[in-house]
Amino acid sequence: MDKSIEEAMFLISRGCDEIINEEELKQKLIKSQKTGKPLTIKVGFDPTAPDIHLGHSVIMRKMKHFQDLGHRVIFLIGDFTGRIGDPSGKNKMRKQLTEEEVLINAKTYQEQVFKILDKDKTVVEFNSRWCEQMKFSDVLGLTSRYTVARMLERDDFTKRYKTGQPISIMEFLYPLTQAYDSVALKTDFELGGTDQKFNLLVGRDLMREYKLEPQVVITMPLLEGTDGIEKMSKSLGNYVGINESPKDMYGKLMSIPDKLITRYMELTTDIPIADIQNYKKQMEDGSNPRDIKSILACEIVSMYHSEDDARMASEEFTRIFKDRGIPDDMPLLDIKKGITIFELLKIANTGESSSQLRRLLQQGSVSIDNEKIIDQNAVVESGSILKIGKRIFYKLQIS
Amino acid sequence: MDKSIEEAMFLISRGCDEIINEEELKQKLIKSQKTGKPLTIKVGFDPTAPDIHLGHSVIMRKMKHFQDLGHRVIFLIGDFTGRIGDPSGKNKMRKQLTEEEVLINAKTYQEQVFKILDKDKTVVEFNSRWCEQMKFSDVLGLTSRYTVARMLERDDFTKRYKTGQPISIMEFLYPLTQAYDSVALKTDFELGGTDQKFNLLVGRDLMREYKLEPQVVITMPLLEGTDGIEKMSKSLGNYVGINESPKDMYGKLMSIPDKLITRYMELTTDIPIADIQNYKKQMEDGSNPRDIKSILACEIVSMYHSEDDARMASEEFTRIFKDRGIPDDMPLLDIKKGITIFELLKIANTGESSSQLRRLLQQGSVSIDNEKIIDQNAVVESGSILKIGKRIFYKLQIS
Repeated sequence: MDKSIEEAMFLISRGCDEIINEEELKQKLIKSQKTGKPLTIKVGFDPTAPDIHLGHSVIMRKMKHFQDLGHRVIFLIGDFTGRIGDPSGKNKMRKQLTEEEVLINAKTYQEQVFKILDKDKTVVEFNSRWCEQMKFSDVLGLTSRYTVARMLERDDFTKRYKTGQPISIMEFLYPLTQAYDSVALKTDFELGGTDQKFNLLVGRDLMREYKLEPQVVITMPLLEGTDGIEKMSKSLGNYVGINESPKDMYGKLMSIPDKLITRYMELTTDIPIADIQNYKKQMEDGSNPRDIKSILACEIVSMYHSEDDARMASEEFTRIFKDRGIPDDMPLLDIKKGITIFELLKIANTGESSSQLRRLLQQGSVSIDNEKIIDQNAVVESGSILKIGKRIFYKLQIS
Repeated sequence: MDKSIEEAMFLISRGCDEIINEEELKQKLIKSQKTGKPLTIKVGFDPTAPDIHLGHSVIMRKMKHFQDLGHRVIFLIGDFTGRIGDPSGKNKMRKQLTEEEVLINAKTYQEQVFKILDKDKTVVEFNSRWCEQMKFSDVLGLTSRYTVARMLERDDFTKRYKTGQPISIMEFLYPLTQAYDSVALKTDFELGGTDQKFNLLVGRDLMREYKLEPQVVITMPLLEGTDGIEKMSKSLGNYVGINESPKDMYGKLMSIPDKLITRYMELTTDIPIADIQNYKKQMEDGSNPRDIKSILACEIVSMYHSEDDARMASEEFTRIFKDRGIPDDMPLLDIKKGITIFELLKIANTGESSSQLRRLLQQGSVSIDNEKIIDQNAVVESGSILKIGKRIFYKLQIS
């Protein structure tokens, strides 16, 4: 195999969950090399207002890899379906967006994604461009190309059908619409999370039905959040936003479980695979994971801010936490922003009475991130570590 | 109950399989009587070229009953779906019709149906009028109002899904389109055969979803053909077309099984119910069913031709068959038009050898409807009774 093709395959494969299929991927790369014609990569995004976090970045970084290889990346905003919502009004989750809201959301997206993607090499598209032109007869043509049985094979549909939860026929049309976007754009590749695999394969099938060369489907893993358990998401509060301050970003990354260090490296940074394997070996050989985690945190802060920011964040973190005997493992308190310090102490449930807690506050024995809090009505807005007395520590997760 | 309402209910109920539901039917009739506003009755027809037969007439006569009561009958031609066919090309049965073909078929229909319906009181509609205006977003709105599970409850879908036969998602859209016609027309009643019950009920449900007063569904039985077994249909050759000659019509009706006499009377004529019950009793008391059948045949020939035609057809029938000792029951030969008399004799399989059959022909011992056939290569195009020798009779069914 041509060396440049081999390298391209290596870069594209990095961190992927599945490529369906690799042989077609290779053939497309070879053909593009021969003809000099770039390949088209489609990635669909909801038109909802996002705060982009490292979870999203996994796919965006894969888009960037394709850009680095000279291909054409389409950032596709699914505004058509978003603007429709659920016309029956039965699905409250599916909020109907106005055209204006969609445009504002799209702008917010773009401001953030160009921290990862190359702006000049990104085509932003809206699927309303072709969906709005479609008439009833076109929709019938679309729906004639896919069967009910295959659609019901999608895990969530199967489950809902079996347990008697209603699925509206409209819900069958959404994956077809998304798949039709691939037909309209004649895409070579579609990227998505593993949870999107079914939908991406519908696109692959549908392209065949429309006598087009089927797209290659590439799925990326869903990144675990800082808790190491759930998928990273804003609503769970376990996320690292790409717009967060160096200090918050660094602090959150230092709180991830050790087992995620190399996974984060592979999926959210460009640290060479060989280096990552080396770090893995060092940890197996007894190196302190905290030091490797610091390399990860510095790398990510450097990517979204600067190396200086990363160094400062690292120094501050060391000053505040490491040198003060804060343990590596602490119980987690998951709280809402805006509660008072007194309420927080009650939740921590250290066994002290209310009057004892008030006394601890008055004595200056309570601190968050090393700042003493005296007023029992002080409102908690941010922070990572709650310290009570000399030896009680809690990790805070504030959402 | 008001006497006129009672009479209307009695007329509408004649021959019905189901009315869903009777109370709503009554309330609609009462309301119409109070306001003087006629009710809207929708009946959908395929845009294929039809030869209308007594089977079709069952529903058309019910439409006529509504016209007689002063209501507004919509003869709805489903041209939209007919013009689309199956765009995937997978369903060969679903032929795509051009706009011109649809119009020609519609004209053929109308020429025939106004033998039954009152032309001045019939509104002919084409569902392309509203369907062609619908955009993708309207279709999504439509599909959001019905669930996959309910659609799969339709008998044929259930069966195909369970046995792994593919159902395209488009096929789910067709009943919804038909149902949407009721929304567009704000229908009070929809009539159809018992095999249409599911589709008619989708219309009823969908009207509720669109906040309209749901239509009342009236289903009519599917009329058995002249064989007394299968549903009347042209392709089975067991039909009585409303455009057939008095002689053919009369002859075919005289060939139906006795058990169908009163059913035909109820469903295809206006012979009063009391009279029908009387005929039934006469047969139970030992009257010859052939005489009652003759009343039915005369009635139907009178309806589509004239009383004179009926009388002449009856006389001819008597002359040819009854007076010549032809038995009431004969074995049936189901043959294709255009075979030779010699082939027919072979099929009849009387036990004679080929040379014996040739001799019978040469002797003038073979006849169809009393006409001798000598040439063994004579082509059989029509006829009801084959006679071989003196005592062997076969009833012919030629298609």
